[in-house]
Parts: sequence; structure tokens; C-alpha cells
Amino acid sequence: MADVILVVNAGSSSIKFSTFEERGAALDLVVHGQVDGLYTDHARFEALDHHGVRYKKEWTASEELDHRHGLEQIAVFVSEHREGHTLAAVGHRVVHGGQRFDGPVLVTPGVIDELEKLAPLAPLHQPHNLKPVRLIEQMHPEVPQVVCFDTAFHRTQPDVAQAFALPAAITDLGVRRYGFHGLSYEYIASVLPDVAPAAAAGRTVVAHLGNGASMCALVAGKSVASTMGFTAVDGLPMGTRCGNLDPGVLLYLMEERGMDARAVEDLLYHHSGLLGVSGISGDMRTLLQSADPRARFAIDLYVYRICRELGSLAAAMEGLDAVVFTGGIGEHAAAIREGVVRRAQWLGTELNATANLDGGPLVSAASSRVPVWVIPTNEELMIARHTRAVLE
Amino acid sequence: MADVILVVNAGSSSIKFSTFEERGAALDLVVHGQVDGLYTDHARFEALDHHGVRYKKEWTASEELDHRHGLEQIAVFVSEHREGHTLAAVGHRVVHGGQRFDGPVLVTPGVIDELEKLAPLAPLHQPHNLKPVRLIEQMHPEVPQVVCFDTAFHRTQPDVAQAFALPAAITDLGVRRYGFHGLSYEYIASVLPDVAPAAAAGRTVVAHLGNGASMCALVAGKSVASTMGFTAVDGLPMGTRCGNLDPGVLLYLMEERGMDARAVEDLLYHHSGLLGVSGISGDMRTLLQSADPRARFAIDLYVYRICRELGSLAAAMEGLDAVVFTGGIGEHAAAIREGVVRRAQWLGTELNATANLDGGPLVSAASSRVPVWVIPTNEELMIARHTRAVLE
Repeated sequence: MADVILVVNAGSSSIKFSTFEERGAALDLVVHGQVDGLYTDHARFEALDHHGVRYKKEWTASEELDHRHGLEQIAVFVSEHREGHTLAAVGHRVVHGGQRFDGPVLVTPGVIDELEKLAPLAPLHQPHNLKPVRLIEQMHPEVPQVVCFDTAFHRTQPDVAQAFALPAAITDLGVRRYGFHGLSYEYIASVLPDVAPAAAAGRTVVAHLGNGASMCALVAGKSVASTMGFTAVDGLPMGTRCGNLDPGVLLYLMEERGMDARAVEDLLYHHSGLLGVSGISGDMRTLLQSADPRARFAIDLYVYRICRELGSLAAAMEGLDAVVFTGGIGEHAAAIREGVVRRAQWLGTELNATANLDGGPLVSAASSRVPVWVIPTNEELMIARHTRAVLE
Repeated sequence: MADVILVVNAGSSSIKFSTFEERGAALDLVVHGQVDGLYTDHARFEALDHHGVRYKKEWTASEELDHRHGLEQIAVFVSEHREGHTLAAVGHRVVHGGQRFDGPVLVTPGVIDELEKLAPLAPLHQPHNLKPVRLIEQMHPEVPQVVCFDTAFHRTQPDVAQAFALPAAITDLGVRRYGFHGLSYEYIASVLPDVAPAAAAGRTVVAHLGNGASMCALVAGKSVASTMGFTAVDGLPMGTRCGNLDPGVLLYLMEERGMDARAVEDLLYHHSGLLGVSGISGDMRTLLQSADPRARFAIDLYVYRICRELGSLAAAMEGLDAVVFTGGIGEHAAAIREGVVRRAQWLGTELNATANLDGGPLVSAASSRVPVWVIPTNEELMIARHTRAVLE
């Protein structure tokens, strides 16, 4: 009778979950799904079991669900589909581990207290990530929990990569470059030795291009630089986030245009990026199918900015040996990969157009000095692995 | 009897000036100097004539000077040292030409009105730059004036280089990447064909490292990308300015730490950069002589960020054929050049350590695939040339 690990990724209005069964050294996905629409009048539950059977449930407008209700729904589903498994542990995705946490840790009341203190650094995510941790501690104190951080993987970066040019009084508040998507990069780094040994040993840029997007420079599998900084709004343009922006723009919008900090935050997080530039959509699939020149420009800007960051990250490593695409756009948008690889020829990338349309995994030509890979990421599996490792 | 051109560069509390004598195609510097301490109790005038004689004047605490007084002082000095010359025209440095002005223009009342409308884009500089233009128009309406912009040279950049990933409602306000130090880059581009023909024809990054600092990518002498964006606080760390910063940091300081926009502006413009990081000085000469590890870290961060931007700008050009250092630090700080050239070896730069200590002009080894030059900039001469050309 095998153990299962439940992986939880909670946001402000949703909880994603999956369970992994321990089979020797392997961890196999059993079920996965999500509750979303929490705190709205259209909460929904959706899940897929390991036979491929889909489950759906919707609540009526009068039944508003909170995080506790969502977790209870997940607990019922997991329990009904455990097929004799025992719940060994719960692993959580937590966006911020601050400067202290450079790896996953077992949850204790002290750990939760410390993580809650980091909420001001990620007010839109940290409190929601932690809610299920507290709730499960109350509901099932016997189940061990592990928290895994999006920031931890980047703590190997040199100080110059983590520092802003700000005075100590500000950096001492914790204002530094944390980098995010660390669980995704760590997963990629963990599979690289099998997929591409030279990339694993060398200087590799991983582009995690999803609804959120960032890039990370890996030297021998360790993060040495990344495009996201203090928050998840920095770096590349994203679906609705602006990415890198002159700080003077914020001062202008507030001092000269009368916007307050909240209005600016809403602008930069929810109305910028691909959506803002195109005026059409923040979804790359929609833009790629559009004939509108504004969609074309949003795509061109996206590719251009990826290429600028690629040069910058190569500079951080003083060279480039391989490129990896991952995330929804990185894994599925051949046109974006093509745009990047063609503009990056000066760095040694050469496209294999057919392989790229087929989705790889190797999308560069045999003669390409810098091979280019497509590798699907799996942050949930990374969390399950961490959870097991912490408890061993 | 030759004509002279007066070049004026006015800030909030100072007016720098120089005169150039027309000798055939050449423009020779006659006198130069500045009034500073305007609106304070310690105004000073200092100038050097073409015999190398230094002139100084100080005002007592009770005599506060404004821009008009400063200009009158300059007019008296220039008039006393004109040695038979006629004042042919005045050329002004103006920080912002907005989207319309892609080159210098003759001053008309309509031009001044339009430039004053750009003040919200550069509130700390634009109004002060324009004050002497208005004053000279009133005092000497017969003297033609020409305004030269720090932004104009960058208007050749492709749209993807000038755009932020923001919605049209914001970019239509004029929120885009303008780039600055354009008169310096234009001067360098103008002398490159003589100094380094290959660099002039190819893909060259110019690093203007002074109290303000930025870098520009030139393809065949035209700007295609630069590190400064909407304002002069973006890009590289500077003496007291932070450079590139996650916009989320501003939101954090305001929403979580209660700072208002003015306090944040003061922090980012006056207490950050080399001064903020070192806690010692914003002057590179002081830091280079310091044994304090914080000074060392500020220097390391400065070099690192230059190298990251060098990679990013090379990506904008899809390659790199030459590097040029200019500005006070770029021309005189051999240690900074050495740090950059050594970290940029992956791009093809190779140092000639002796030539670098000697200040160049060529500071790379004969075998360096990418030659590295030191070329003193001369923004005043560029303004004088523009002024003459507009009036011809």
C-alpha cells in the first residue's frame, strides 16, 4: 500500500492540487485539479483522475466558497480517489522564502510565523499561499507539511546579481532581487543531465514563458542571474504585466498624472504586457492568430525583450552553451521560439524549423553551436520530490 | 573678424557656457566657464579664457543670483573677452525634445511653447534648460538661438526599442523610452569615422560613464538602443541614481513603508547608485581609492551592470564590433575599463593593460576581435556645430 503526497498551490481565488504516488524512486501523478472562483458567485471544482475521468462541480451564486471550503472539497475528492493510499504529507508552493530560506522546509508554527512576516514582500501571493498551510495544520495536525519556495533556487546568485543600487537602509528591509519561478528552473535543472548533459554542465539560459514569464541563467545547474527582481512584475513583459520599467514612469504617473500607488499597481499588473500593448488579449495564442498589427507589435516586442535579456544573461555567465524553452508559451508557441532563435544567431543558435514546429525536444540544427531545447516543466512534481526528500 | 557661437547648458542652480570661434570649417573653443550656486547664498562664477587665464568671482550671502543674473554675468564676461568677435548665435542644451524633435531647431516662440509642454516629462531639467532661451529672446531678440536635444539622436531606434509594455492610453501620454546623452553619442559617432572606421561602420556600444551614465548601441553611427529610458534615472547605476529598478520596489516603498512619491524620487535620484551602495561617496575616484569593502562592492556592482547591459545592447544589434568608453569615468577610470573588458572577453574584447593605464585611445590588444577605444566626448562642440549648421 503506497503513500501519496498532496501538492497544493493556493492563490487568492483558487487552489490547484495534485497527488503523487511513491513507486520506489519514482513519483507518479495520481489525480490533479483545482477549485477556482473562491470568494465569487461562480466557484467551480474540476479534476482528472488517473484513469482520465474528468470531474466537475459548480456552485450556485448563493454559495460563496472560501479557502477552507475549497480545501475541504479537495480533501473529499482526494480521499474518494486514494484507492487505498495513505496521505503521507502535503507539499505547498509558497512564493516567498525571503533571504533565509534557500530550500524547502518542514512546517512548524515558527516557520509559518516567519513566512507570514514576508507578506509585505509579496502581498498579492504570500498570504494566500499560506492559508492552506494554517488550515491543514488545524484540520489535520498529524499530517506533515513542507513548504517549497519560488525564490529559494536563486539564492545561489552572486551578490551583484541580487543587489539593487540602493542604500543599505532600503536593502536591509529585504529590497533585493529574489527571482521567481525557482521551482520550475530547479525542475529543468534536475532533468537536464538526462536530456542534455552538456547544457547541464555548462552555461544555460532557461526561458520560462507562461502567463508569468522570466528567464534564468544556470551555470552547472545553479542559478546565477534571473530577470525577475524584487517582485513578479519585473523583467520580461507578460500576459498582463509590464516587466522591466523605468522607475521614473511610476513617479511621472503619480506626480504628473495624479494616479495613486494602487492605480499604478493595477495598471502594471493587470493592464500592461501583451494585453496592454496589443489592446486585444494577454493570451499569446490569440495574438498569434490575429492579423491586427497591434498584435504583431506585441509579439515583436515580446521576442525582442526575450532576446535582449538573453544577451544580458549570457553576459552574467560570460558565455552561452545552451537555451531551454519551457512554460505554456515556451513549450507550445513555435513562432515565438523561432523568432528568438533567429534573432539570437549571433550567440550561436541555429534553428531546425521542422523540429521546432514538431515541438522538439531539440529545436536547433545539428550544426548549431548553441543547442536549443524544449523541455516541459513540472513544478508540482518538483514540490512532491522536495516534500519526500525533507521527510526522509 | 570671426563670429563666435555661445553654448549654454543651464540646470536648476547653474549655467555652464562656452564660446566657439568659427575658423573655416573648424570651431575652436575660446572661453568656457560656469555660474553656480544660483538661488543660494554662495553663488560663484568661474571661467577660463583662451590664454589659460582663470577668472573667479564670488558673491556674498546677501546677494542671491537667479538665472537672469547668471546670464548677465556670462554676457559681460563673453563681451569682455570677445576680442573683436561678433556673437553669431546661441546654442542651448535642452534635455527633452519629446517625440517630435529628432534634431536641433531654430528657436521661435512656438518652439519654446512646445518645449515647455514637455516639462512634465523632465520636471527636474526641462524648465531650467529653457529659462535662458526665454531670457535671451527678451534681452537680445536679434540673436538667433538653436536648441539641441539629449533625446533627438535616439529617435532612429526601432519601435520595439522605444516601447514599454504599457497600454496605448499611457504610451500616448508620451511614456516611452527616449534615451539621453544623445549629444555625447552623436559627437562620438561624428568622430568615429576618423578614429576607428570599422567601429563607425559596424555595431558599436558607447558607454558614456560620467556622473550620469548610460550606454548606447550604434549601428553604422545610428542609435538603435540605449539603457536610459523615460527618464535619466533608468539603466546603469550612477553617482547617486539607482538605474534599473523593479517597479514593484516603488509600490512596496509606498504601500508598505508609507513613503510618498517625492520621498521615493529623492531616494532614487539622490541617495542611491554608487553613493547609496557604498555609503561612502558617489564619486568613483573616491571609491577607487577606498579600502572599504562597501566601496569595492559598489564598484563591482557598477562593472557587473555595465557588462549585463553590454550583453543586452549587443543583442539589440545581434553582434558587437567595437566598444567605446567616454565621459569622466569612461575617460579616466582605467580600473573600471579593465573590469568591463575582462568580463566581456566572451564577446571578443581583450585588454592591452599598458595602453589602458595610459588612457588609450585604443585600450584593447592587437589580437582583440572587438577593439575597445577611449574617446573624450565633447557635447558643447556638438551643440556649437549643430547651431552653425541650423543657421547655414
